[in-house]
Amino acid sequence: MDSIFTKIVKGEIPSYKVAENETCYAFLDINPLAKGHTLVIPKKQVDYLFDLDEESYVELQLFARKVAKAVGKAIPSIRVAEAVIGLDVPHAHIHLIPINSESDVDFRKERVKLTPEEFVQIAESIRKEFSL
Amino acid sequence: MDSIFTKIVKGEIPSYKVAENETCYAFLDINPLAKGHTLVIPKKQVDYLFDLDEESYVELQLFARKVAKAVGKAIPSIRVAEAVIGLDVPHAHIHLIPINSESDVDFRKERVKLTPEEFVQIAESIRKEFSL
Repeated sequence: MDSIFTKIVKGEIPSYKVAENETCYAFLDINPLAKGHTLVIPKKQVDYLFDLDEESYVELQLFARKVAKAVGKAIPSIRVAEAVIGLDVPHAHIHLIPINSESDVDFRKERVKLTPEEFVQIAESIRKEFSL
Repeated sequence: MDSIFTKIVKGEIPSYKVAENETCYAFLDINPLAKGHTLVIPKKQVDYLFDLDEESYVELQLFARKVAKAVGKAIPSIRVAEAVIGLDVPHAHIHLIPINSESDVDFRKERVKLTPEEFVQIAESIRKEFSL
């Protein structure tokens, strides 16, 4: 069965796209812990990050790094943190979260509410900084 | 100046070593969020993960994946989560944390208290599962 992320990759569910290459896709988390909170996924639907074959795993990590740099340039923060939890959607995904303190990485935290216009503007600002 | 992690790699500060290769080192976090909480670092002292050169970055991520699999085999948990925060020690490090719920990844959480004997036993159980 297609995961919600596979449906996003196929365009069946809309997303605020940030970056894409042949094998990977990045888009804004719609329940963000911070402005610019981005999800990076392999297009191939694999549940557990560490179960990806080596080539896909390396491609994903290199893609995530490029996206992280773009997020860091677009969104003011001290660091772009990376987190892989993987207990919710059964499709491997890397969270990239602009942070200013360690406590900003807490998935029980209240999420930031943004308007569609704000999501569009944030995605665009990250896309502008992204280069393959 | 040598970071505390560089001193650990050099053996100037002791650590509960879990795995090592030519360029990377893994050891137990002494203030763990969970039993088996492991830190994976490049031996080269670079502050920010995403500033590692591409080759070192890929090596580190592949090494972390092998360590994560060993942690997963040695320590009962649903998943081994990955987190990179990077606001404390200025030497890039990947947290690998065995988790059973999303709330287990919260760096403000009370840390697990373990005796030196327990650390030794945990490190050994992970080492046994690790293969290069």
